[in-house]
Amino acid sequence: MLAELGRLKPQIVACLESQLTKVRQENSHINHWVDDVMARIHDFSIRGKMIRGGLVDIGLRAFSQTTGPATAQFSSAAIAIGAAMELLQSLLLIHDDIMDQDDKRRGKPSLHAQYRQLAQQAAAVDSNHTGESMAICAGDACAFLALDTIAGLDLPPGIYRALMQLLSRELAVVVFAQMGDVWNGAVDHEVGFDEILKLYRFKTGRYTFSLPLMAGALLAEASRSSVAAISELGEVLGILFQIKDDDMGLFAGSQTTGKPMGSDIRENKKTLHRHFLLERADISTRQHFLTIFGNKNASSAEIAEIQATMEELGVRSSIDAELGFYAAQAREKIDSLPGLNAWGAGMLNSLLEWNLTRLA
Amino acid sequence: MLAELGRLKPQIVACLESQLTKVRQENSHINHWVDDVMARIHDFSIRGKMIRGGLVDIGLRAFSQTTGPATAQFSSAAIAIGAAMELLQSLLLIHDDIMDQDDKRRGKPSLHAQYRQLAQQAAAVDSNHTGESMAICAGDACAFLALDTIAGLDLPPGIYRALMQLLSRELAVVVFAQMGDVWNGAVDHEVGFDEILKLYRFKTGRYTFSLPLMAGALLAEASRSSVAAISELGEVLGILFQIKDDDMGLFAGSQTTGKPMGSDIRENKKTLHRHFLLERADISTRQHFLTIFGNKNASSAEIAEIQATMEELGVRSSIDAELGFYAAQAREKIDSLPGLNAWGAGMLNSLLEWNLTRLA
Repeated sequence: MLAELGRLKPQIVACLESQLTKVRQENSHINHWVDDVMARIHDFSIRGKMIRGGLVDIGLRAFSQTTGPATAQFSSAAIAIGAAMELLQSLLLIHDDIMDQDDKRRGKPSLHAQYRQLAQQAAAVDSNHTGESMAICAGDACAFLALDTIAGLDLPPGIYRALMQLLSRELAVVVFAQMGDVWNGAVDHEVGFDEILKLYRFKTGRYTFSLPLMAGALLAEASRSSVAAISELGEVLGILFQIKDDDMGLFAGSQTTGKPMGSDIRENKKTLHRHFLLERADISTRQHFLTIFGNKNASSAEIAEIQATMEELGVRSSIDAELGFYAAQAREKIDSLPGLNAWGAGMLNSLLEWNLTRLA
Repeated sequence: MLAELGRLKPQIVACLESQLTKVRQENSHINHWVDDVMARIHDFSIRGKMIRGGLVDIGLRAFSQTTGPATAQFSSAAIAIGAAMELLQSLLLIHDDIMDQDDKRRGKPSLHAQYRQLAQQAAAVDSNHTGESMAICAGDACAFLALDTIAGLDLPPGIYRALMQLLSRELAVVVFAQMGDVWNGAVDHEVGFDEILKLYRFKTGRYTFSLPLMAGALLAEASRSSVAAISELGEVLGILFQIKDDDMGLFAGSQTTGKPMGSDIRENKKTLHRHFLLERADISTRQHFLTIFGNKNASSAEIAEIQATMEELGVRSSIDAELGFYAAQAREKIDSLPGLNAWGAGMLNSLLEWNLTRLA
């Protein structure tokens, strides 16, 4: 499945590159930061797996009733929208890394860490803050580059308009969800099961799956009910994706995730794993763990202790049960999805299986 | 002129409010931050002078060749685009205040200061950082709300598309310029006359004047050459506006600017005033002033010393000369603007005069 999702990566990268080159050429007279930030955004964006970019094309093909020249026009639009999705992903990751104070992303220094280093070399008054400020700008630039990529498409007016409305609506959703995520990570209060699931649904689900799949469906001129149904499926796929992501963050090394093992623990991310663990641990263990969660300097021994207790207390088997529950929901939704063609049904089922078994 | 620019404020506010209410209702199931941030964005946005919002309508009317029902449809679109401009202004100010570490804006705590206070009350681990993170999100939300406001408009496809392209292109410009501004404020290097003017042109000019005037001109279906000409005029108006803004920031109190007097000095903003001052001061005075510029704790006596020396060394009269030079350029551009109607010519001349004489 990852191969299928990544199939269009070369075309998406090429589209991204031509877009960045265009914007660089149009703006390099403003100052030298244009070249600087375009190069960094390029380097940052092409290192992604481009799942979201690939999903636009899957959404398009899953609802297309014909093949031929008309479809070819939309295929190239799907690639451009895919490139825009990757730029939006860069925006969110760049701003996310500032908020989480994560200095690494995709195996390299995150954007604010890159600019902090530059500011240190230039002896800036407060290099940390300067790094963050420059990265806020870099993220903002990604947003407008993404919009520009889609705004330049030559599409039938109805589809063009629907895409713009989809984009603005869904990005507001992810930002609202992010606020909850930031707050929950910063404040010492417990977050219930329902609230955690809501975050997965609205932050990961709508953004990672619903938005690109819906964009593809809109390109295919799928019916309103098809678009609504793929949107709901996307939420469930997102829950599965996020739980799996948390699991890899806890139990897989940085080679898989591009982040140091246990960084979610150090950042006190209110994951489902953490919720089950604290619910089941006895009072003294719970108190002890609460000194590790959110401790930026937690040792690898402490991380390992949490990992071991998760296995012992059956946290991972409960996680597997949740995955099973939502996988069943997703299967049902795929089976009853209106307007889906046979290729699409097969592809969405593969996507579901990949969400359950992926190792990266 | 301020009365003319503010004439539509009630309608723009009403449009803003209905947009915020719509988005709040659509999303309040996500979490309680939706209500929270919508209320803060509302309170923040309506306290603006709404210059940019008003300029869209001026751009529309300045190029309209007819009046009647057709124009009425576009007038209501101009108000919605005006509301979007105000939301974009909120985005830029919210992120700007984080970068400049300005705790006050429009006479009230800036957004990150509001969230920092909330985080303090909730005993967050790092309330300063949490406040900034929440405000980054609030700014991002403004961007998508602005886009949503325009994306929902019912306009002829050609105009709709042109507006989307204008928006994405111009916002990228302001972000690139902002990067230069952030860097110049943080790093101890001098910025030449040309670079300062470029910043005024691209950050203030294109964003404050060119973008809204061009949006209005596009609504009026003005010719390409008209749109290009109003864009150039906008840059010059922006230079005038920014120089005047710097002047008020230096010599007017917080009642006028909503910011403490001399905050640009404490932030080491590389203004044209500062440039002329350092160019003319003798070495020892220059060295002394360089310890005041960028000192967050500079006293009012030190600020007053800089003000007095600016008067003494003729900085303010040189500033007046610059204003005169660019005012002449602007007048020429207005006189030769293709497609401009008589009302528009009068209005743009009033706008120019206001830029030169405004006290707030």
